[in-house]
Amino acid sequence: MRPSRRAADELRPVTLERGVAKHAEGSCLVKFGDTHVLCTASLEDRVPPWLRGQNRGWVTAEYGMLPRATGERMRREASAGKQSGRTQEIQRLIGRSLRAVVDLEALGENQITIDCDVIQADGGTRTASITGAWVALHDCIEWMRAREMVKKQVLKDHVAAISCGIYNGAPVLDLDYAEDSTAQTDANFVLTGKGGIVEIQGTAEGEPFSEDDLAALMGLAKAGITRLVDLQKLAIL
Amino acid sequence: MRPSRRAADELRPVTLERGVAKHAEGSCLVKFGDTHVLCTASLEDRVPPWLRGQNRGWVTAEYGMLPRATGERMRREASAGKQSGRTQEIQRLIGRSLRAVVDLEALGENQITIDCDVIQADGGTRTASITGAWVALHDCIEWMRAREMVKKQVLKDHVAAISCGIYNGAPVLDLDYAEDSTAQTDANFVLTGKGGIVEIQGTAEGEPFSEDDLAALMGLAKAGITRLVDLQKLAIL
Amino acid sequence: MRPSRRAADELRPVTLERGVAKHAEGSCLVKFGDTHVLCTASLEDRVPPWLRGQNRGWVTAEYGMLPRATGERMRREASAGKQSGRTQEIQRLIGRSLRAVVDLEALGENQITIDCDVIQADGGTRTASITGAWVALHDCIEWMRAREMVKKQVLKDHVAAISCGIYNGAPVLDLDYAEDSTAQTDANFVLTGKGGIVEIQGTAEGEPFSEDDLAALMGLAKAGITRLVDLQKLAIL
Amino acid sequence: MRPSRRAADELRPVTLERGVAKHAEGSCLVKFGDTHVLCTASLEDRVPPWLRGQNRGWVTAEYGMLPRATGERMRREASAGKQSGRTQEIQRLIGRSLRAVVDLEALGENQITIDCDVIQADGGTRTASITGAWVALHDCIEWMRAREMVKKQVLKDHVAAISCGIYNGAPVLDLDYAEDSTAQTDANFVLTGKGGIVEIQGTAEGEPFSEDDLAALMGLAKAGITRLVDLQKLAIL
Amino acid sequence: MRPSRRAADELRPVTLERGVAKHAEGSCLVKFGDTHVLCTASLEDRVPPWLRGQNRGWVTAEYGMLPRATGERMRREASAGKQSGRTQEIQRLIGRSLRAVVDLEALGENQITIDCDVIQADGGTRTASITGAWVALHDCIEWMRAREMVKKQVLKDHVAAISCGIYNGAPVLDLDYAEDSTAQTDANFVLTGKGGIVEIQGTAEGEPFSEDDLAALMGLAKAGITRLVDLQKLAIL
Amino acid sequence: MRPSRRAADELRPVTLERGVAKHAEGSCLVKFGDTHVLCTASLEDRVPPWLRGQNRGWVTAEYGMLPRATGERMRREASAGKQSGRTQEIQRLIGRSLRAVVDLEALGENQITIDCDVIQADGGTRTASITGAWVALHDCIEWMRAREMVKKQVLKDHVAAISCGIYNGAPVLDLDYAEDSTAQTDANFVLTGKGGIVEIQGTAEGEPFSEDDLAALMGLAKAGITRLVDLQKLAIL
Repeated sequence: MRPSRRAADELRPVTLERGVAKHAEGSCLVKFGDTHVLCTASLEDRVPPWLRGQNRGWVTAEYGMLPRATGERMRREASAGKQSGRTQEIQRLIGRSLRAVVDLEALGENQITIDCDVIQADGGTRTASITGAWVALHDCIEWMRAREMVKKQVLKDHVAAISCGIYNGAPVLDLDYAEDSTAQTDANFVLTGKGGIVEIQGTAEGEPFSEDDLAALMGLAKAGITRLVDLQKLAIL
Repeated sequence: MRPSRRAADELRPVTLERGVAKHAEGSCLVKFGDTHVLCTASLEDRVPPWLRGQNRGWVTAEYGMLPRATGERMRREASAGKQSGRTQEIQRLIGRSLRAVVDLEALGENQITIDCDVIQADGGTRTASITGAWVALHDCIEWMRAREMVKKQVLKDHVAAISCGIYNGAPVLDLDYAEDSTAQTDANFVLTGKGGIVEIQGTAEGEPFSEDDLAALMGLAKAGITRLVDLQKLAIL
Repeated sequence: MRPSRRAADELRPVTLERGVAKHAEGSCLVKFGDTHVLCTASLEDRVPPWLRGQNRGWVTAEYGMLPRATGERMRREASAGKQSGRTQEIQRLIGRSLRAVVDLEALGENQITIDCDVIQADGGTRTASITGAWVALHDCIEWMRAREMVKKQVLKDHVAAISCGIYNGAPVLDLDYAEDSTAQTDANFVLTGKGGIVEIQGTAEGEPFSEDDLAALMGLAKAGITRLVDLQKLAIL
Repeated sequence: MRPSRRAADELRPVTLERGVAKHAEGSCLVKFGDTHVLCTASLEDRVPPWLRGQNRGWVTAEYGMLPRATGERMRREASAGKQSGRTQEIQRLIGRSLRAVVDLEALGENQITIDCDVIQADGGTRTASITGAWVALHDCIEWMRAREMVKKQVLKDHVAAISCGIYNGAPVLDLDYAEDSTAQTDANFVLTGKGGIVEIQGTAEGEPFSEDDLAALMGLAKAGITRLVDLQKLAIL
Repeated sequence: MRPSRRAADELRPVTLERGVAKHAEGSCLVKFGDTHVLCTASLEDRVPPWLRGQNRGWVTAEYGMLPRATGERMRREASAGKQSGRTQEIQRLIGRSLRAVVDLEALGENQITIDCDVIQADGGTRTASITGAWVALHDCIEWMRAREMVKKQVLKDHVAAISCGIYNGAPVLDLDYAEDSTAQTDANFVLTGKGGIVEIQGTAEGEPFSEDDLAALMGLAKAGITRLVDLQKLAIL
Repeated sequence: MRPSRRAADELRPVTLERGVAKHAEGSCLVKFGDTHVLCTASLEDRVPPWLRGQNRGWVTAEYGMLPRATGERMRREASAGKQSGRTQEIQRLIGRSLRAVVDLEALGENQITIDCDVIQADGGTRTASITGAWVALHDCIEWMRAREMVKKQVLKDHVAAISCGIYNGAPVLDLDYAEDSTAQTDANFVLTGKGGIVEIQGTAEGEPFSEDDLAALMGLAKAGITRLVDLQKLAIL
């Protein structure tokens, strides 16, 4: 039995609320249960120096957590003077995941920065971030299209993410904090709408896991992401 | 005529929503119109080194802004590696303002940190922060009282803040961004429920202002803060 | 009775010594009693990036304290790797105060940086800094005028600053360290030669103060600043 | 055809040279072809603060690259003032991988730090680091055993790592830089001697990949790591 | 002919003014011509962690320059966020030089920090700093003696420093900025009152120099330092 | 008797191995006994901003130590977030020493950066670095010559360095760590192939030393450097 009494293949309640940020070109408040992440998309008409003059754009991401998003207050990274290794790992993952479904040439020499700020954390902040970031990115591109800044299709597909893990010996979908902190194995899957794998990261927290375990987790993830992509489609209707 | 069509002595719609953060000992989402600040109170059973062993507590504050809280995306301070002078000025002001109404001895050797994070900015983020922070602080102290961690009265009074300014030659209350960015004079007032002055900061952006101007701004501020304190009282009913 | 046996409305002995720095385009060693600040003006023929091409200049300030300017040695900020919030607050205040009396267009595309370095501290370092900085700025502009780098009047007025506070229940002028560290209320006033208010910052250290208190402090400040402006006039004769 | 003319399932020449650092308690210079990493193990008789008093030890890792280990000189991280996100990601991976095969209780309250410094880079620095780090760690533990600092078995198994990728449409083992920089998919596998999965990280650089692709890469990785573990066994004879 | 018209073996006018800092336990404003350095000594009753419990004291130094001490304004190190390599080199030199004449055991478990802050620079700031620092250190030790904090002789000898260089082909004493910036060879000598060498640093700026050159510079330095030590003796009478 | 049983004027075994870094334009692994330093030369076709447009090049150096190059593991500077004063002092010395024998005009507008990374330390890392750096620099210039990037002679002479010290009262050559940590006096000499002095740094660790001591150390150094220059000549044959 999971602490949340969910079935092994059951997502937490997921909502994707668009247009929540007055100033941003695209935004989405994504909730995976008690994990709440505000995703905003910011457009700039310039690209990083190493990309200039190539008629291509760039999509990047930054990730942060409010200090009391968590059970214990964490030190504010701005005050500590640097971003933790974990923060950098996550924001690099979000950026790579989004770029996997973007036609950077169709974007023109523009950069879109997706900020994913965790307002409240209960496990799965990186997967919620990727899932919500896609919606913010989508709306930013539509904002550009409405102004004829892009012509061709920029987004090639959906992308969404979910965690799976082995909890009390059984594979389960969408770990919350209570599960995540005690799971033997924790894996994050980033898949496209068509089911292609963009990123897979599996870690044995205690005992190593087997190929069969990996296959079981992958099976759960595929079903979960199919559901998340459906929710993205509903959200942008 | 103000850009928002408000009367000179009219506040923006103000809401104070409590209990919005699952993990914090106290929290308040404060809105002054389109300025939205999430205030959380975090309790620790230890005080800063310079205060140890004196049977007194401490209240401090930190302030931050999400990168796209503003019209143009601002660089994330965690990524820049330091907090700006403006950020430090504001968080020092919030802390001083709250401490003015706290009996630190009654708090015992505990520290309460109030995090004020601006989710969306439209002028007046520091005054909204102080006004909402008081509610989060109040709830944190009630949380302690329910656990018999404090016995005596810890909060001596309400404290709230509002900005006033001279816009198009006339004194107005509660500047929004459109006014703030062009006002000749900008003043922030922090007053207690009983009307005592905790902090006053007035700045001539262009031409110096007169004592009469100051008196007019003070008059507006007193009325505005009376209204904010009433809203605080309603919020904690 | 004040620790220094001064009358309530009595300034400490104030001196403004010009031309003390061999290399600077303007300089002033200002003394408010035992508070000694070296102010230098440095001219550059370029402005900050956000101001380029607008035919306007800029005046900015930096503030520092020698480590043993104070009773206890303070950690050197260069060694700590950052400027404290207090330092940043003060240098922003000095810059704003000076800009209030400068015609930035008449300055042309030039930047003047005023460095205020506290050689010895005994309370009131920010007010002494502003008062002395005006003299250094004046001399820098005269240096430019002698080289025909400016034609029109650049300085629109004098600006000077003084602190007042409520000490042992009574309003007093120009707090020294012994008073400042125990005063119930501490306020800094920045006024122009014509008596306009450029900046007012009042803080209740313990109990809130009243509008009457504020009026009394303002009265003291106006008299004090009139005297400081007279001393500036004498200094630049 | 691979640029190196290797077969799809062929490792680069791998060597593991022990005892190369005069001062370290364990050391290994690992070479995967032209990728050379110096791994040293340093023993301390204290653990991180959060682990004190629990009769358990800790194993951690740090990673660095000499500035001219690469084709273009990279900025020295010590001079830049911070470690890149990539560096932090890699050193966290190395630490996790090693801890997966260590009995931390059997280690007692001691910390072993493995430094992996890339002397020369040609792709696969993180996998070479993990493979060599195990040897340095092994020798450090034997150093402790010789001094009766540990009694029980501390190392539970071997751990080694290899990258695989899809290059020109075909799955290949142990990517060198020429392949890595153009591969469509890049995956790193960390497996134990018994074949358990400790960590799997797969990334689509361009097009998403399929479950079949993942299975093919996994198959290559298992064979490669079996070979690496054999080389570790030979090295510590 | 030297730019200053001094003879080859002629010092600039040197003054050593004691007791210039109200708060410090010892202080000296040293002037070598237009080079002015404020040296203060600060006493603490604790030593660095690595020295604790050994009944020995420590003497250390910090060095800084006011931003406009020089012809061109230099960036403030506190604002840049770090001390330059040059600053660190100089402060390490000052500390070593002073410790060479201090009996650290006689000092007891106390630390004296000498701050050398360059108010105005015209070449030779490090040699002026060492020469003035000795006076500040002397007075700090006398301050301790008056309070019976030290009993035995703590200062074993005088120490002073001077630069020499080869300017226009000829060896000259005490380079000012005009000479220093064009000298072929620049050497700093730190000698004790008895003539022992504490530190010698010679650098060829352009062509290498010979042993004979070094001997000539050494001869000038010895005479110069004899004169500086005489001035130190006069200063502390 | 020296700990290493060497004669007073005897170098440790010295080797200079060229071409050890696959990617660098020049490289040398230098060993002075158990002190091993990897020196690489990296060529860039741009010079620092302050040198642009002058048809002159630049040679600079950076220095680092692997964390476990020493008996006790030292904190990684990249992780500490800054280079120590010692590191900066050494890399400035290496750069100055090399520039003393380079015709910067003949180099054209190119910059060569020499990285000296200490793989293993046993005293004398800075002198080994300079001696090996010259070989790496030489090979980089030959690399340029082979591509007709330089025409004229760029290297004007050899440069090498050695330490000497007074150990147990006697002058000795090439201190290893056991001697260096207890020597009364430690001096580093940087000389050219023709015997000119580029840099001399002598420090009394305890008692001051005399001119006679300095002369004795200089005598040892000249003989030692003659030998090192011979080894450089053999190395580049």
